[in-house]
Amino acid sequence: MSLYTSHNPVFATFSFYAALLIIKTLFVAFLTGWTRFRKHAFQNPEDCNKMNRGKVKIDEDVERVRRAHLNDLENILPFLSLALLYIGTGPTLGTAKFLFRTFTAARFSHTFVYAVVVTPQPARALSYIVGQLVNLYLIYAILTSYASSF
Amino acid sequence: MSLYTSHNPVFATFSFYAALLIIKTLFVAFLTGWTRFRKHAFQNPEDCNKMNRGKVKIDEDVERVRRAHLNDLENILPFLSLALLYIGTGPTLGTAKFLFRTFTAARFSHTFVYAVVVTPQPARALSYIVGQLVNLYLIYAILTSYASSF
Amino acid sequence: MSLYTSHNPVFATFSFYAALLIIKTLFVAFLTGWTRFRKHAFQNPEDCNKMNRGKVKIDEDVERVRRAHLNDLENILPFLSLALLYIGTGPTLGTAKFLFRTFTAARFSHTFVYAVVVTPQPARALSYIVGQLVNLYLIYAILTSYASSF
Repeated sequence: MSLYTSHNPVFATFSFYAALLIIKTLFVAFLTGWTRFRKHAFQNPEDCNKMNRGKVKIDEDVERVRRAHLNDLENILPFLSLALLYIGTGPTLGTAKFLFRTFTAARFSHTFVYAVVVTPQPARALSYIVGQLVNLYLIYAILTSYASSF
Repeated sequence: MSLYTSHNPVFATFSFYAALLIIKTLFVAFLTGWTRFRKHAFQNPEDCNKMNRGKVKIDEDVERVRRAHLNDLENILPFLSLALLYIGTGPTLGTAKFLFRTFTAARFSHTFVYAVVVTPQPARALSYIVGQLVNLYLIYAILTSYASSF
Repeated sequence: MSLYTSHNPVFATFSFYAALLIIKTLFVAFLTGWTRFRKHAFQNPEDCNKMNRGKVKIDEDVERVRRAHLNDLENILPFLSLALLYIGTGPTLGTAKFLFRTFTAARFSHTFVYAVVVTPQPARALSYIVGQLVNLYLIYAILTSYASSF
């Protein structure tokens, strides 16, 4: 029987947390747009008009949000692939839920301290490392499960 | 029975439109390279030679294509994960096909007006918003289907 | 029967090589951080302190590693989606293994010649093209298998 079905609670849990992580990432995209309007700082001449008083310029507040966004792509997108493949290794619900929740909490924290309320280090470094440790564990679980498929 | 099989027409439809979206994204990658050669603007010293008359420099035409590419990564890659998980919620073929086609059309339009024939706003903004509305609906459908897995 | 199960050797092989590709990408992320500390070049004021003697500045060695990282996101993440959908088309193990191994070798080579030991062209161009040819073949296989789902 396939483990990739809504009847498998590990798959259901993954689907839920994956959707949470992606809505968080979309929020950062919206925050970029909102900061561009607030700071009148755009990337393209066709985006600037009298109403938004926009100029093509680099603004440090916008750049910070963009860095948070790129960091999400670098960490959350690999997690989505890894966690999906990890489901196929047949983990227990308890372990899987712990990993998915930990990663989700770490990435919400990362966005908050990076782009919402700028917080001194090591707040961001810790959030980043916790997320990466989950990714590394998922990689380890997949590689050992499928080592014979080398 | 698993919904993740080529016998499920929703999965088959997703596979088809996902491949279309990715070939569109690869086209933007090729367009970046082509614009670099056309404008002789490269990022690395080892890429410049007498034949391509290349210099390490920033060119606005290249940057525009790169922004279109990054926007694809920010929007299409999350869609691919969301749509895959959405299949597990058992949508009707009609609804799924409508969503996959709408998103695909929105992203083809986004690339065209951003990087092929630069078009005044709100052409790009509308393409972007239609794509994001599809993503938001997919997130809503996944979160409500799997809410008990919190 | 679903093809998305650890009993399908094509799926097992994909899981293994996907994990390898993602750990390679995480290595580039770690290399970025390591180069930032080595060159004392950071992006955020809160990352700079007396111990790391950091400044907010652009460093060409850091930028090179970041370009390698972005190139991974642009190529490896689409591959992960394409290869997953390709499994559903029921390829033979021999063909699938050849494609997954070729792509993995191409991307390890790309990282090595771009960000570890800077190598004259066409080393990087060839690595890039081999990876993209695999992606194009996967797209072709998916589109022809599911053409009736247009």
